[in-house]
Amino acid sequence: MATIAIYAGSFDPITRGHEDLIHRSCEFVDRLVVAVAVNSAKKPLFTPDERVALIRRAAGDDPCIEVKQFQGLLVNFAREVGASLIIRGLRAVSDFEYEFQMALMNRNLSPGLETVFMVPSVETTYISSSIVREIAQYGGSLEGLVHPAVAEALRAKFADGPSNT
Amino acid sequence: MATIAIYAGSFDPITRGHEDLIHRSCEFVDRLVVAVAVNSAKKPLFTPDERVALIRRAAGDDPCIEVKQFQGLLVNFAREVGASLIIRGLRAVSDFEYEFQMALMNRNLSPGLETVFMVPSVETTYISSSIVREIAQYGGSLEGLVHPAVAEALRAKFADGPSNT
Amino acid sequence: MATIAIYAGSFDPITRGHEDLIHRSCEFVDRLVVAVAVNSAKKPLFTPDERVALIRRAAGDDPCIEVKQFQGLLVNFAREVGASLIIRGLRAVSDFEYEFQMALMNRNLSPGLETVFMVPSVETTYISSSIVREIAQYGGSLEGLVHPAVAEALRAKFADGPSNT
Amino acid sequence: MATIAIYAGSFDPITRGHEDLIHRSCEFVDRLVVAVAVNSAKKPLFTPDERVALIRRAAGDDPCIEVKQFQGLLVNFAREVGASLIIRGLRAVSDFEYEFQMALMNRNLSPGLETVFMVPSVETTYISSSIVREIAQYGGSLEGLVHPAVAEALRAKFADGPSNT
Amino acid sequence: MATIAIYAGSFDPITRGHEDLIHRSCEFVDRLVVAVAVNSAKKPLFTPDERVALIRRAAGDDPCIEVKQFQGLLVNFAREVGASLIIRGLRAVSDFEYEFQMALMNRNLSPGLETVFMVPSVETTYISSSIVREIAQYGGSLEGLVHPAVAEALRAKFADGPSNT
Amino acid sequence: MATIAIYAGSFDPITRGHEDLIHRSCEFVDRLVVAVAVNSAKKPLFTPDERVALIRRAAGDDPCIEVKQFQGLLVNFAREVGASLIIRGLRAVSDFEYEFQMALMNRNLSPGLETVFMVPSVETTYISSSIVREIAQYGGSLEGLVHPAVAEALRAKFADGPSNT
Repeated sequence: MATIAIYAGSFDPITRGHEDLIHRSCEFVDRLVVAVAVNSAKKPLFTPDERVALIRRAAGDDPCIEVKQFQGLLVNFAREVGASLIIRGLRAVSDFEYEFQMALMNRNLSPGLETVFMVPSVETTYISSSIVREIAQYGGSLEGLVHPAVAEALRAKFADGPSNT
Repeated sequence: MATIAIYAGSFDPITRGHEDLIHRSCEFVDRLVVAVAVNSAKKPLFTPDERVALIRRAAGDDPCIEVKQFQGLLVNFAREVGASLIIRGLRAVSDFEYEFQMALMNRNLSPGLETVFMVPSVETTYISSSIVREIAQYGGSLEGLVHPAVAEALRAKFADGPSNT
Repeated sequence: MATIAIYAGSFDPITRGHEDLIHRSCEFVDRLVVAVAVNSAKKPLFTPDERVALIRRAAGDDPCIEVKQFQGLLVNFAREVGASLIIRGLRAVSDFEYEFQMALMNRNLSPGLETVFMVPSVETTYISSSIVREIAQYGGSLEGLVHPAVAEALRAKFADGPSNT
Repeated sequence: MATIAIYAGSFDPITRGHEDLIHRSCEFVDRLVVAVAVNSAKKPLFTPDERVALIRRAAGDDPCIEVKQFQGLLVNFAREVGASLIIRGLRAVSDFEYEFQMALMNRNLSPGLETVFMVPSVETTYISSSIVREIAQYGGSLEGLVHPAVAEALRAKFADGPSNT
Repeated sequence: MATIAIYAGSFDPITRGHEDLIHRSCEFVDRLVVAVAVNSAKKPLFTPDERVALIRRAAGDDPCIEVKQFQGLLVNFAREVGASLIIRGLRAVSDFEYEFQMALMNRNLSPGLETVFMVPSVETTYISSSIVREIAQYGGSLEGLVHPAVAEALRAKFADGPSNT
Repeated sequence: MATIAIYAGSFDPITRGHEDLIHRSCEFVDRLVVAVAVNSAKKPLFTPDERVALIRRAAGDDPCIEVKQFQGLLVNFAREVGASLIIRGLRAVSDFEYEFQMALMNRNLSPGLETVFMVPSVETTYISSSIVREIAQYGGSLEGLVHPAVAEALRAKFADGPSNT
């Protein structure tokens, strides 16, 4: 059977940590749907379209990967794309607790849908989209944290100064 | 001596996890005051009156239980109702740390007031009011997560679509 | 109904932290059975009889307290003494995880038996029997860590030097 | 490509929690090698051969599963059987920290070998081989904790009384 | 060489826990810059100038201490004042994970800049600025939680009632 | 004032992680006493003298460092060498809880003695002496985990096969 997996998140923007997880997942799944959450409540820095475009630039043209936007419950979107696996990165304990709870809830909502957790490479453990945005806002170096195309997009966003956040 | 305990929270809305804790507590306390926090800062989905009514429906007519609203510091409200015990559910580590800090602070503010933690049933570990609200918002199944009366109230709230959150 | 609770452990020896929990528990239970685990596998410093005697000296003559030895599964002993509550002190996260698992297992083995967790006073958070034994072994000060009678018993045990552990 | 995964442990004995993980893994891997660690240092209750036999009984005849013994470093054994994935169950935070460290070390020792973590079903979260052994030793009920064949094997081991551990 | 360290935070307002860390740090660093974060996004209770003034009152006139405001990345400000050390208080696990991530990121951004963590005194473990603000808002006792000058400033802020938060 | 710090442990054997902490500490303390614990209870792989020699080889000839053996309570040894600071590496949550407790106990036993925690470099997070010993025992690669001199000493220890552990 072909395994289809989902890797969902805000990706605002995609970091080297996300890229690492994407490439590791493609080693054992047949197709990976990178699912960009479109959540009307949060105010993201990048629009959903921009986030999708940056993921495509950063994650490269691995035929394993497909990038999509979704709204609503992840379990519903997983069903729609035929996924049987949710991929999650695991960095920290506080992460873990919430992730554990979501994995159990998603299994309750959709019994055939399994969640597996992966450990990102040590070089990316300290990278998160929110820290990356904060560094970009104050003109810090993004080297090693995001793909050059993402760094450029961040610099463009903050070109008018930190006041526009 | 008769032990009066308080079980406080937002209950926005009450879940099967809350109900479980309420019934377990009534096994060893004489009276349990379920205290609905009325916090002007947060924007709850249900009004305090609605939340009280749903707790009464879901928790049943156990004479041990009394449902009340409160504002301000929990220690003050505990003193008002003559409680010597605060009951807290313990699900996760991140919970635990905050709960630990609050238990110590409440003891500092009111030395005679003890906090005890209980473990909810495994079937309810992954349920939280916020996840329940999110599932209801997108029309997911609430079976096993909340009392039927609560499920109905959630459906009514979201009848006009997710835009009204 | 009268609530009978169990507070079990090795108590090798009883510390100020244990005493604190015992006195806090007696505020809301009618009878507290302090249960000294007699585990043939571990090599305790004090014999079960010595540990019972030290608990009696340190915990005082509160009529709420009864000190007993037990062997085998705690749930069986709880049934024997008619207890409906297990009291546990909660100090740290690593504690918590194990305690959580035991609470669920004990509930599985004996559905009417509830576990409640309490937070010791901040002054005793860093005290454990094993640290106390180590300090006593090297002649460090036990002031504030254990009852004077326990300190004396520890000094007597280590009078011949650390080699006899 | 066919994904071969390893699920390693002491399995002393296999529990319902292990069985759950085995069946969940077979949903997305092509072959799962259940690897029984033969560690000369620890004193297990069951011999390696007994543990293998119990796994075969409990895990059933899913063609996905193969049960083997191994000694030495897991990464070496993984290479031997052609595995590209290590499956680990994740129950608790203390687990998690150690598991995290091992996952990183194993990746360091064998870069192509990925570790994925899975969440066992809530009904099995509180089950561990060591708790199961302790319950069996004192004649407690093993219902729901292990496969009937494992329960029988445990009862046989402890037939001469707890002294033979 | 003279060691210059930074202790950064919102200090909204400074608590007895912060004071404790400041005095402990001055035992092994030559100069401690207490850095008040001026973050336009958050709505603090006290203005940056008020927070600086309260720190000066509460922390006393130890020549080791210097109080400053900063904006932007901490690593840039550290470079500006010549600091080679970041001091952080460590209270809880959830704290710890975030702190760990920030320490690694700050090291990545500024390799010579080291982060060291300290444990506050047990008497202050349960104190945080947010809990202090909440207690003050409802007229609870601030004794032992903050310096008398801070307590007075809090009372003045909330004199018009809790509505002005 | 000159700051003297202690970095204590079993160092059985010293790893790249320990070396990293030693060099980081020397950036802000004047003298660092690397203290090898001689604990008669544990069965170390290397003798205290071998461990001291390996530390001297691996840590280099930084004049900041002094290597010593100690027995008994760390606080007593700290007093003996005039140290006012204990340096500890912090890797994981389970570590952290125990470390937190020890830091508070050591402060209780010796009020002027402060403990500071440091984060090792990400490249060394997954290295521990026990994992290193296990890898060496089964002939795995020690590259990047320990100093070449330590790798050689490990190979010599295990030359007669894993049976001599």
